[in-house]
Amino acid sequence: MLTVSSRVQQTKPSYIRNILKVTQQVDMLSLAGGLPDAELFPLDILAQAAAELERSPGIFQYGATEGLAELRQWLLGDKHLSDDVLITTGSQQALDLIARSYLNPRDKVLCEAPSYLGALQVFDLAEAEVHTVMAELDGPNLAQLEQQLAKHKIKLFYAVPDFQNPSGHCWSLSKRKAVASLLAKYKVALIEDAPYRQLRYQGEPLPTVSELSSYAAFYLGSFSKIATPGMRVGYVKANQALLAPLKKVKQASDLHSALPMQMMLLATVRHPLFAEHLTKLTNAYRARRDYLAALLKQQLKGELTFEVPEGGMFIWARLTRHNAILLAEAALQQKVAIVPGDEFWPSNHTADYQAIRLNFTALIEPQLEQAVIRLKKAIQSCSPN
Amino acid sequence: MLTVSSRVQQTKPSYIRNILKVTQQVDMLSLAGGLPDAELFPLDILAQAAAELERSPGIFQYGATEGLAELRQWLLGDKHLSDDVLITTGSQQALDLIARSYLNPRDKVLCEAPSYLGALQVFDLAEAEVHTVMAELDGPNLAQLEQQLAKHKIKLFYAVPDFQNPSGHCWSLSKRKAVASLLAKYKVALIEDAPYRQLRYQGEPLPTVSELSSYAAFYLGSFSKIATPGMRVGYVKANQALLAPLKKVKQASDLHSALPMQMMLLATVRHPLFAEHLTKLTNAYRARRDYLAALLKQQLKGELTFEVPEGGMFIWARLTRHNAILLAEAALQQKVAIVPGDEFWPSNHTADYQAIRLNFTALIEPQLEQAVIRLKKAIQSCSPN
Repeated sequence: MLTVSSRVQQTKPSYIRNILKVTQQVDMLSLAGGLPDAELFPLDILAQAAAELERSPGIFQYGATEGLAELRQWLLGDKHLSDDVLITTGSQQALDLIARSYLNPRDKVLCEAPSYLGALQVFDLAEAEVHTVMAELDGPNLAQLEQQLAKHKIKLFYAVPDFQNPSGHCWSLSKRKAVASLLAKYKVALIEDAPYRQLRYQGEPLPTVSELSSYAAFYLGSFSKIATPGMRVGYVKANQALLAPLKKVKQASDLHSALPMQMMLLATVRHPLFAEHLTKLTNAYRARRDYLAALLKQQLKGELTFEVPEGGMFIWARLTRHNAILLAEAALQQKVAIVPGDEFWPSNHTADYQAIRLNFTALIEPQLEQAVIRLKKAIQSCSPN
Repeated sequence: MLTVSSRVQQTKPSYIRNILKVTQQVDMLSLAGGLPDAELFPLDILAQAAAELERSPGIFQYGATEGLAELRQWLLGDKHLSDDVLITTGSQQALDLIARSYLNPRDKVLCEAPSYLGALQVFDLAEAEVHTVMAELDGPNLAQLEQQLAKHKIKLFYAVPDFQNPSGHCWSLSKRKAVASLLAKYKVALIEDAPYRQLRYQGEPLPTVSELSSYAAFYLGSFSKIATPGMRVGYVKANQALLAPLKKVKQASDLHSALPMQMMLLATVRHPLFAEHLTKLTNAYRARRDYLAALLKQQLKGELTFEVPEGGMFIWARLTRHNAILLAEAALQQKVAIVPGDEFWPSNHTADYQAIRLNFTALIEPQLEQAVIRLKKAIQSCSPN
């Protein structure tokens, strides 16, 4: 039979996908996914946006690979004249296009550890060599970062500075500046992935690392967490010359992303009630974060430690006595799904086997309470290390 | 600065994209594109489909990589229990996913010559070695096909058996059977790309080559020509095991294609008035094909020869005295765009420099007339070989 390519052979399937059949059981409570709550989607605004589609029949025709001109203009604003923006099928596609445009097999990429699973999959597909730098509460460990940049000929540094998936960490201003300057010093391009940036529950927004950067930087934006993910509209913003190869790859990949989705997304984020929706959304998620954090402290005292993240969708907890993989299995028996932390390390790296990722946006408070009760039972059923 | 990957370096940009700025001038008439006529889109049906979106809020959430279950079910029907279907961002993406799943650099691919430009770009991106077999009126030259299959270790054979782009050729039943059996004999997988299959203006539909095949076959379907291309909904149907790696690649590439588009597409093709739309569409395109063919025979007698295609979107003509590249340049001066045929040969192959591709679906009759008058002027302005 047809043998698969080496790029596919070395790409590991995702844990969340592997347990999908189990997590889709009706009596299962999942803290494993990264889903926004569908009950909080701005459906009234979306319905209005859908009704407006027929007024723009042109969006049903083939379009430019770059995306809908009006949406691109809105994203670019009037600053950064040398910048360009490419609309993608979710920011996941932007990541894949960057990898395909710039990476040859065995090229070196640097990621935080832990890091977003979907990015690690993209770098596996690109057959890149992935190196890591330790993620600390306020950003990457700078000494280690410089060491890695000096030691390896790194081509791209991938990072999620705002409320990282899985750790929830948000980089401090000083670390943002320090990273930007180290990348410029070593001439390493930045991929700044910012899907959670607008899900901030406390504190003031900090500048993006791209803004502070004087060297090549790709900024990846998403609407999946603040509007809806099913429409698959994301984008990448960068210097025109940097984006040119991505357009070439995207043209061969899928010609362009769905135009009616781009139009609906623009109508949604421009809608007078969108700001109100965003406030409602962040209020709801903040309350769930606080609720889950309080529950974990009450119910699982001594069993795990964590910091309350200032934004995003996850609490990243370290188990004091248990192995995360065994606990995740025991948890499925108790009808609650969690992700063991080692999933967020590249293959062939020493991972953290005592960390777990808990999502707090997909379930409402009574479900979160039930989920923690089940998790407690799972911990009790499971032998410590 | 960041150096681009070797896969991008060896992918040539498309001619149609290169001349886009010129062809978008308001006074330009383009026979160069492959656009359906936006005036013939089923806008009433699409508007109804858009209005129904809000009744299915679930489609705004993240979905399965495979695509919307209802659409997949509709496409699969109740036959072929071992088959599976993957929804893609246009059938272009299906092609890219197959290449990424199965091709390593320097793997060998066979295409008809001439062949679809977008497929050649995908194989360039995959850094494949492309071999060709001559496209004849009724399908590939069988002796040459067997020779190529016997000589090279071909992994995939890419073909458009129904009204090929650019040639308009439709394979005969006997060639369909012969190709299927040769591919089985040499254990070469088929990629059957069928975007024009439903644009038949005369004669009876023939079985797909995939149906006749007893070896691995991917069938690529599109709605871009019969519904609308802007929604970017296509699919690939194949044996479950063959599709599995494509899902893995698609998950890392973009998670899944836009779900509201899949829902709207399903509502559109299932609509009671869709059959009527399809009749209206094929009637209009048939009339334009006949009109352009008659014009070419009257106005450009002695300058070119062609066969009237039974379907599709293009007339493929051979110039009797002129070089196609020079004529295409002269045509732009006369404000009419055509594609010189050599674009449809892989790089480093000896192409046909006297063929041109003329689209007949995007312009209405008075525009076609004007376009041919301009083309005649271009021919007169241009020295023969």
